[in-house]
Amino acid sequence: MQVTLINYTPNPELTIVAAARSSASQSTAEELWGKLSSQQIDNLFKQLLDSGHLSPFEHASFTFSIQGISRVTSHQLVRHRLASYTQQSQRYVPLKQYRYVTPPTISRQPSLLAKYQQTLESAHEFYSQMLEAGIPAEDARYIIPQAIETQLVMTMNARELLYSCSLRLCLRAQWEIVELFESIKAEVEKVAPRLGAELKPKCYPLGYCDERESCGIFPTKSELKAKEQQKD
Amino acid sequence: MQVTLINYTPNPELTIVAAARSSASQSTAEELWGKLSSQQIDNLFKQLLDSGHLSPFEHASFTFSIQGISRVTSHQLVRHRLASYTQQSQRYVPLKQYRYVTPPTISRQPSLLAKYQQTLESAHEFYSQMLEAGIPAEDARYIIPQAIETQLVMTMNARELLYSCSLRLCLRAQWEIVELFESIKAEVEKVAPRLGAELKPKCYPLGYCDERESCGIFPTKSELKAKEQQKD
Amino acid sequence: MQVTLINYTPNPELTIVAAARSSASQSTAEELWGKLSSQQIDNLFKQLLDSGHLSPFEHASFTFSIQGISRVTSHQLVRHRLASYTQQSQRYVPLKQYRYVTPPTISRQPSLLAKYQQTLESAHEFYSQMLEAGIPAEDARYIIPQAIETQLVMTMNARELLYSCSLRLCLRAQWEIVELFESIKAEVEKVAPRLGAELKPKCYPLGYCDERESCGIFPTKSELKAKEQQKD
Amino acid sequence: MQVTLINYTPNPELTIVAAARSSASQSTAEELWGKLSSQQIDNLFKQLLDSGHLSPFEHASFTFSIQGISRVTSHQLVRHRLASYTQQSQRYVPLKQYRYVTPPTISRQPSLLAKYQQTLESAHEFYSQMLEAGIPAEDARYIIPQAIETQLVMTMNARELLYSCSLRLCLRAQWEIVELFESIKAEVEKVAPRLGAELKPKCYPLGYCDERESCGIFPTKSELKAKEQQKD
Repeated sequence: MQVTLINYTPNPELTIVAAARSSASQSTAEELWGKLSSQQIDNLFKQLLDSGHLSPFEHASFTFSIQGISRVTSHQLVRHRLASYTQQSQRYVPLKQYRYVTPPTISRQPSLLAKYQQTLESAHEFYSQMLEAGIPAEDARYIIPQAIETQLVMTMNARELLYSCSLRLCLRAQWEIVELFESIKAEVEKVAPRLGAELKPKCYPLGYCDERESCGIFPTKSELKAKEQQKD
Repeated sequence: MQVTLINYTPNPELTIVAAARSSASQSTAEELWGKLSSQQIDNLFKQLLDSGHLSPFEHASFTFSIQGISRVTSHQLVRHRLASYTQQSQRYVPLKQYRYVTPPTISRQPSLLAKYQQTLESAHEFYSQMLEAGIPAEDARYIIPQAIETQLVMTMNARELLYSCSLRLCLRAQWEIVELFESIKAEVEKVAPRLGAELKPKCYPLGYCDERESCGIFPTKSELKAKEQQKD
Repeated sequence: MQVTLINYTPNPELTIVAAARSSASQSTAEELWGKLSSQQIDNLFKQLLDSGHLSPFEHASFTFSIQGISRVTSHQLVRHRLASYTQQSQRYVPLKQYRYVTPPTISRQPSLLAKYQQTLESAHEFYSQMLEAGIPAEDARYIIPQAIETQLVMTMNARELLYSCSLRLCLRAQWEIVELFESIKAEVEKVAPRLGAELKPKCYPLGYCDERESCGIFPTKSELKAKEQQKD
Repeated sequence: MQVTLINYTPNPELTIVAAARSSASQSTAEELWGKLSSQQIDNLFKQLLDSGHLSPFEHASFTFSIQGISRVTSHQLVRHRLASYTQQSQRYVPLKQYRYVTPPTISRQPSLLAKYQQTLESAHEFYSQMLEAGIPAEDARYIIPQAIETQLVMTMNARELLYSCSLRLCLRAQWEIVELFESIKAEVEKVAPRLGAELKPKCYPLGYCDERESCGIFPTKSELKAKEQQKD
């Protein structure tokens, strides 16, 4: 998996904060632009998050080139509808560079791993055989396992990054999409450290785990209640 | 493939037309509701489409249960972001009823078909073997070919039905998604015949084909120009 | 202000729950449809909310006719982008039935109220005078105060109803939009009591107030922390 | 009215074209990035538009500071839901700098103009009087005419710019919003001339006018048909 931030709104955090500030001010966003100190940006950024005033985060967008994720994961990813995707077509691009993802649980069992690799290679051979027999690529790909790698370009604004990370950095999400959003977070941190630091699973803002079973970071809501009653 | 309309906004066409009419009227939508004749609904419906005044079409929604499409097609389908999807999870539902889609181009070649079926059955056997070896379903599924069937519930409003059909009923779209939208159109026609009749590929409203090569229904834009210049 | 639910997805709560259930089941939504007892619907409905699994709530939509709100409030309302609106046009519908909204703070001061009414009436007279002088309605309306009433048709799905009520039923929102969403909630309660009961300000799910100052229902986050530290 | 492009995705046209190209290529967007000549960008840009392949245009966003539009126009503007807005609050920012928009049709009639200005000034005086009498700003503003100026920050991606300009540059739209989108187009042209040139009313791509009456640029659909029949 390789995630590269290929483009983004310059000065993303200043853009967010200046826009937000202008809504409760006589000044315009561009007047505020040059006047905000780093400390003021810190404070305003935190205030917006604490009060759940998230719409100004939409003014900064991030464009990623994502390579080497499986079609299992790309199918999950594109369910986030408040983002833009341009995905490599399996209809028009025949699978020459045949690369696939192997789950770690399978890698750890050598006998399964061997069969996994062999099954994927056979599928590719059969795929090529079908192409030679005149089957269009768009149909031959039906035989390709979901492990097959895909690449796509994704643009997401900072508000949706906060939301999708809140879901996908949760350890109850599937390992591959967790890894994807960890890479996304790492890329954002390089250019927008305040924002990057806030890309966290949902339990952090909630203060509890809302899944059936907690991974241990936070107690579930019922565990929390039990604990509080003990105190009283 | 099985597509069933399981729910929808009652009186969808009247809802659309009464809402639209109320925007240019002293009367409210509910006052107009009972007063519009079938002929008036016909006329207003046509006027809205002709003038590209499409927002009132959002007031009527349709919920479909879609079964037996491949993951190839569900991955394409969920790219339509102005709709709601609840898809069967391959993480939590182990593949017991193992059903898959076979492209007609493969069905027509008996030797390929036999190998296609055998490859899919082997993948399932290996999948089951991995489950027994303790691999979680969410990881074992990486070996499953994209032909595997999925089921989902989709809700789409009439405006987005018009748009997605304009793309997906085009014969340049992949055969399986064309078939899916033909089934969607057939279901809509039963309860909203005016709307159903308007679910057509994009060349109908455009008056020309905007793909590189036409399927023959309409000429491409450059073919059209050539024809017009001949006339002059 | 008059809010009327003029249409909605039949059996909205069953639709939501059956769709959600089908995602983790071998059964389809329509197979589950007839089998779910009222008690099961109760439980599943609550589980979805508790776990923040909100996407199935998008399968049920509600269409309201909203009359007699000011343009102050309609301008706030249409900022909720995940909904559909058809609003009465001030370009094409001249203001014959001249009705306006009076804030209670003004009603309570008789001398202000008299001047308020007189100012609004004068504006209308001047508006009519401009129409007679050949000014188009779309321009004459610039003189009309924001108190002027408007009417619109709005369709919103249950997920967005939960979200927008969480913001707009907060007593820090403006009184007129609070009143509007209280009426929306009352209409939903009649046909979908489980859903209606969940249309609540954001402090209820959060367990604290995230505004700068609390209205008293819940303590703010910092008040909550202070209280917890006292206990320890 | 003052429209300033305060931020945007750098290299917007290259971003769009590289993303689009990567979907039908073995190469990634960042590999294509440096390799595309200006001529290739021209050609690909045009191909995307001609074929209606618009989703890659979502990868480039533009953030505008918009000042000095009336609340008539801001209410129309925020109806474009695929964009992000942060608007100056009339709840929290009392109207000290009292500026309003005057329609040209009114400016041209001196007697109406005088009364228009006087009515607006009186409304402001009464507004100030209400504030002094303890009425909250959020309520006092009900008396302010819709001509009052507002300011906002808007972010819109290139696909939605194409769409909203297709509607709002049509001369049948209200003059003030036409002027707003002409300013938006002018700002975009400075940094993305290929895109700016394509921001045009809908009749240009359609080849005819779909309004009831044409402004003269293109004939209506029925006028077009009549003309074609004459030829045959």
